[in-house]
Amino acid sequence: MSIAQPYLLFLGDVTDPLAAKTARGIHQWRPEICLGQLRLTGDTVSLGLTDMTLQEAQAQGAKTLVIGTANPGGVIPDSWQSTIMAAAEMGFEIASGMHQRLSKFSPLADMQQQGLTKLHDVRHFDGVLNVGNGKPRQGKRLLTVGTDCSVGKMFSALAIEKSLKESGTSAQFKATGQTGILIEGSGISIDAVVADFISGAVEAISPDFADHDWDIIEGQGSLFNPSFAGVSLGLLHGAQADALVLCHEVGRPHIRNLPHAQLPSIEQTIEANLQAARLTNPDAKLVGICLNTSAISIEEAETLCQEWTTLYQVPVTDPVRFGVQHITDHLRHSL
Amino acid sequence: MSIAQPYLLFLGDVTDPLAAKTARGIHQWRPEICLGQLRLTGDTVSLGLTDMTLQEAQAQGAKTLVIGTANPGGVIPDSWQSTIMAAAEMGFEIASGMHQRLSKFSPLADMQQQGLTKLHDVRHFDGVLNVGNGKPRQGKRLLTVGTDCSVGKMFSALAIEKSLKESGTSAQFKATGQTGILIEGSGISIDAVVADFISGAVEAISPDFADHDWDIIEGQGSLFNPSFAGVSLGLLHGAQADALVLCHEVGRPHIRNLPHAQLPSIEQTIEANLQAARLTNPDAKLVGICLNTSAISIEEAETLCQEWTTLYQVPVTDPVRFGVQHITDHLRHSL
Repeated sequence: MSIAQPYLLFLGDVTDPLAAKTARGIHQWRPEICLGQLRLTGDTVSLGLTDMTLQEAQAQGAKTLVIGTANPGGVIPDSWQSTIMAAAEMGFEIASGMHQRLSKFSPLADMQQQGLTKLHDVRHFDGVLNVGNGKPRQGKRLLTVGTDCSVGKMFSALAIEKSLKESGTSAQFKATGQTGILIEGSGISIDAVVADFISGAVEAISPDFADHDWDIIEGQGSLFNPSFAGVSLGLLHGAQADALVLCHEVGRPHIRNLPHAQLPSIEQTIEANLQAARLTNPDAKLVGICLNTSAISIEEAETLCQEWTTLYQVPVTDPVRFGVQHITDHLRHSL
Repeated sequence: MSIAQPYLLFLGDVTDPLAAKTARGIHQWRPEICLGQLRLTGDTVSLGLTDMTLQEAQAQGAKTLVIGTANPGGVIPDSWQSTIMAAAEMGFEIASGMHQRLSKFSPLADMQQQGLTKLHDVRHFDGVLNVGNGKPRQGKRLLTVGTDCSVGKMFSALAIEKSLKESGTSAQFKATGQTGILIEGSGISIDAVVADFISGAVEAISPDFADHDWDIIEGQGSLFNPSFAGVSLGLLHGAQADALVLCHEVGRPHIRNLPHAQLPSIEQTIEANLQAARLTNPDAKLVGICLNTSAISIEEAETLCQEWTTLYQVPVTDPVRFGVQHITDHLRHSL
């Protein structure tokens, strides 16, 4: 899956800023590939990008219309269809992170068959994979793991990639979820592959390499989430990570969406992830902890990061508040 | 997925006894649902069942033609197609554990659409599932786990189900792989579901129950197999097992198909499985060990089972050589 760049970000007619989270993520991490935004109404949320018609965007070189908004039920509403169809007719590729597949619209599927457009349903995966084999691969890999879902694994991976690049270490972000794939323009939604191929999919995303220093692999779920732990374990084995960064949200009361399920302790999470990671990389080590500290004050967060740095003997930070340079410095010096 | 019984077992024209392993398994564990066999040539392997034409089998009440043989590449050969088509036309359901889907044959798919037949591609799963939630469910559950793939997890589960039933404890086998599904007539190939739904699929296979004593759930893979561990972990969480039975092949040199991958120790396997199982069932315990001792003499096997019974403080047996009664006795008295 490789999505042509640059993008025109389609915001439809959504008025809830949260619904434009994906588009905002793309713009935040890859401003250079976002030519402009297309909004259907004056009320639609804005990312502050230049408003463009399809024609204007194409004239400036846009290659893909990215549906960068979520919608209740993951369904593409009728009011968006004519714009999407017009884009496909003009030769734009269309990329979507919605549950409902673009290819379910037979006119779009027909246009793809005629070679007019390419459809990227990044939440799905239809390609052919091999099962994983765990054989050592060339290149260094970092994987973000977590105490739960939605604790900042994608954000931390992107922040680490950026920080490494800024200090001259070459790194590539490897996406395993729909937003990450739209940001990077490639990757596989690891939770959408057939269960037998989880680790194989990660081996495909991050094969042998010698042309850069690090692959920074986006983690998913948690070994302690009873819904999704299988995905996390396969991802851990497939990633064959040299370095793990643990992500955690301070103050989260229980596993997301499951009030009966306790969060694991930091110690437990480190121990379980290192133990599992060592099946395919005996040298796997923890190199940092990224906290989402939005529930506490910045002063409390600073104190917590200092205390935990001493406690866990690795750099501890909130990537949003304090950046990740301590982690990438540590990474460069220790691996 | 529920397959109508009794079966006519289709053996095609295979001459390699190993290729008829699935049919033999069905006949071994469920002789009462096997009305007869259909062989295309005199050379075809025989299970010792009555040879029947489709007409004879239907006259005696057969409901499903089961393709009980493996074929290189998992493809249904041309020489079988006319028989399968004739069966579908006569109203047989068709069940297959092949990789290639029956529904790929458009004449068969058409007959299904017309309501003439039902096609069961047990190696695939197209149904709708919920993600797992790990909430405690009613009923007692036993899961077979292993040091690797193909170490006897299905065999052990079926032997335990049978032994429990023979001594008056009501038990139901819950199938998670294609042969198990054909034997039981229901189940889900857990490695064929989308990765997000592994534990949810097991919760669907073994929901709340109060009408019998035990669900005996067929395990898959191993937490230490770098290809498939994600499946095993999701299965462990979804099964919410009260009791684990560990399966192991004595003398296996390395993880199956992966000469570079070491087998875990018995201690490691027990520890890792109990730890993971306790996420969704804090009371999970090991209740027995089933060994495949075919690599050593029966005397050596007896000695080994005795030694390990002392060492691991649970009954240790080879289910083929010595049965599983020690395990089911222990189970009845301790849980």
